Amino acid sequence: MALSIQSYKGARDFYPEDKRVLNAIFEKWRNVCLRFGYEEYDAPILEPVELYAAKSGEELVNDQSYRFVDRGGREIMLRPEMTPSVSRLVAGKRQELTMPLRWFSIPSCWRYERPQKGRGREFYQLNVDLFGISTYEAEVEMLQMVDALMTSFSAKQDTYQLKINSRVLMDHILGTWLGLDAVEQKTISKLIDRMHKVPHPEFIALIEASIAPSLREQGAADKLLQLLNTKSLEELPEDLQKHDSVKNLKHLKSISEASGITNVVYDITLIRGLDYYTDFVFEVFDTDPQNNRSLFGGGRYDGLVGLFGVESIPTIGFALSDVTLMEFLKGHNLVPKTKVESEIYIIPIGDVYDGALSISQKLRGMGVNTVLDITNRKIDKQLKSALKKEVPYVLFIGEKELENEQFTLKKLTTGIEETHSLHRIVSIVKDHRKA
Amino acid sequence: MALSIQSYKGARDFYPEDKRVLNAIFEKWRNVCLRFGYEEYDAPILEPVELYAAKSGEELVNDQSYRFVDRGGREIMLRPEMTPSVSRLVAGKRQELTMPLRWFSIPSCWRYERPQKGRGREFYQLNVDLFGISTYEAEVEMLQMVDALMTSFSAKQDTYQLKINSRVLMDHILGTWLGLDAVEQKTISKLIDRMHKVPHPEFIALIEASIAPSLREQGAADKLLQLLNTKSLEELPEDLQKHDSVKNLKHLKSISEASGITNVVYDITLIRGLDYYTDFVFEVFDTDPQNNRSLFGGGRYDGLVGLFGVESIPTIGFALSDVTLMEFLKGHNLVPKTKVESEIYIIPIGDVYDGALSISQKLRGMGVNTVLDITNRKIDKQLKSALKKEVPYVLFIGEKELENEQFTLKKLTTGIEETHSLHRIVSIVKDHRKA
Repeated sequence: MALSIQSYKGARDFYPEDKRVLNAIFEKWRNVCLRFGYEEYDAPILEPVELYAAKSGEELVNDQSYRFVDRGGREIMLRPEMTPSVSRLVAGKRQELTMPLRWFSIPSCWRYERPQKGRGREFYQLNVDLFGISTYEAEVEMLQMVDALMTSFSAKQDTYQLKINSRVLMDHILGTWLGLDAVEQKTISKLIDRMHKVPHPEFIALIEASIAPSLREQGAADKLLQLLNTKSLEELPEDLQKHDSVKNLKHLKSISEASGITNVVYDITLIRGLDYYTDFVFEVFDTDPQNNRSLFGGGRYDGLVGLFGVESIPTIGFALSDVTLMEFLKGHNLVPKTKVESEIYIIPIGDVYDGALSISQKLRGMGVNTVLDITNRKIDKQLKSALKKEVPYVLFIGEKELENEQFTLKKLTTGIEETHSLHRIVSIVKDHRKA
Repeated sequence: MALSIQSYKGARDFYPEDKRVLNAIFEKWRNVCLRFGYEEYDAPILEPVELYAAKSGEELVNDQSYRFVDRGGREIMLRPEMTPSVSRLVAGKRQELTMPLRWFSIPSCWRYERPQKGRGREFYQLNVDLFGISTYEAEVEMLQMVDALMTSFSAKQDTYQLKINSRVLMDHILGTWLGLDAVEQKTISKLIDRMHKVPHPEFIALIEASIAPSLREQGAADKLLQLLNTKSLEELPEDLQKHDSVKNLKHLKSISEASGITNVVYDITLIRGLDYYTDFVFEVFDTDPQNNRSLFGGGRYDGLVGLFGVESIPTIGFALSDVTLMEFLKGHNLVPKTKVESEIYIIPIGDVYDGALSISQKLRGMGVNTVLDITNRKIDKQLKSALKKEVPYVLFIGEKELENEQFTLKKLTTGIEETHSLHRIVSIVKDHRKA
């Protein structure tokens, strides 16, 4: 029986035209990170299960994990996210590394989910993390990087929002302000995280059911439900306005606005699923009413490095999947345009293989990406291949050309032919590259 | 208990200084491939087990595989090599793709082996494949690419050899010339493949034990053992010289030499472990007597695409691991030198965060990789960080500087300070980048 040509379910093949687009996305990601002084790192795709068991949340570890036992009996997992790995790396050289650290990476990650539009089992994920800064300037830097990333794809600020919130504020509201106990706080947090995914009457019922009768009688549920309608920091009740976390969020919003980031909004319902966030959280949200979905997000996770038995480090970061971004880019017609990297396609005329081979070597030595046709087909067939492969120039090499050291260069988009020395040809092609 | 900071056994963490070197290696690989008109593709790291069961050889599938069952009951494997995946991709679009195809990729691969020097469980592997050419010009192109790859790392031709052989010739020798049956041929092939790893008397005994007594009495074992001493194509017995495969190897060697590749040698003992090779095979061999090991290799595998139920395609390719290459580069002091990508480290003096933030945005907008120190530490501590992080320039920003729009740039390697406008500073830094 023949082998299947299907890739593994939920995973993607990248043919050259797809890989070029992926590379263009990676290049933009990388450039923005380098502009902000971030350094690239990497870690293995396999990690021990316990690395994720600590803080990644039950869903990732129990329901969506690719976990198995290796031939040496070790319980291992294909990474579903990079944050635990990067925390491990930082903890591993805690003493040698000069804080603050600005680090990024573009790992491939795996989650066993039902494949659907904008969500596969495998995805690449830009991870950006800033270690060693506990103050709001770190938050500003994150929002600036997000803005720079979106701008690098020419996304307009009115097509997405930067939603911000604070876990400290949320804890204060649920604990001190409403008087809920720890279990109630956790339950309510999870409900709010899913608020926009369940019908509102159901949400109300769930909230009410999660609060102890004594508190409910004092109006805690109504108070919370009313508060969740808040649309801006200024609308918050006066007593909450005085809380430091609200002041910080206001400050962050105004600095961002002063630096040209006009789409920062406070969202009291923003929780973010991962357990390790400790304070500031944010999410980039597609404002297109047809999509109306979260693109990516991040936040502050000050406790993670400390889990490795070293002194804790204040940390903030975010992560962005290529799959989700691609859906956004497609929706806004912003998918990067790419072109074939090959520049000259040599067509040998007659029995001139040795000579054509030598010219191909010279062109490559001068920095030109050169395909040498070695199929021995008729010229029109070779020309057709060059066209199909979208190589911009064809170079004809026959005995006469080799003798005179003058070659005919044909630009395939215009059909124009010119005869020049090899050096002149190289500069024509290099000018075309820059254009 | 604290989480472990160890990475999974046999796998590597890449801290920024390691990742820079890895990226430099990838960039050289990529550049050579693009120069020869090769296009990059990619495929998932997980594939169905049967993809490898077909032709990858028992060792990879049974002894060294990371195989497991996913939550949907599918038998899957972390890829130990890329050739089956690329064959699957080509078969998947057999009709749409314009032959010949020149493809490359840089996948991460996994094999469960005992970790040792120059061999981990995880490695990156450059894969280069040319589909659709059955003639020797394809072989020439492979050898030229190998030469260009080694040259891109400044490796000298006298530090390595390109060993060549032909499976067709080997089959002819073992079958027609010696008269061995199919089972004997297979056993003897495997013995020859491991010839240099076992003591010679043991090798002789194993060869003799693998040949039927009747043939052995006719001197087949002695004839073979003597033939295995052959050091060049010209030394082969006259009747073998007439075989097409010998003519092809001679032709290949002479064309390679004419194009400047002087280190091609015939090695009659070269087999290459993978089952799917059908004719030409080659290996790049470190000639340093202390290492004396295979660096990488490849060959022709004309049958693989056909396993997917489509028309076969003649194919030739090779693969090169970053781990093995790195050992070679270290041994010859050729590890690529890299430098930190950050270019300017801004040190704010006094309470000028907003102004410094604005200058950092301007510098980034003009294409300069800029770190803004937001630690609020004393100036000498900030300067120390810039030095430790090897950023070449420091820019001091105080109230006076913001007012006059003139800033002091300090080059950290020389200690020289100059005061300039932002535009002038950008051009100084960009000139430094080119240097």
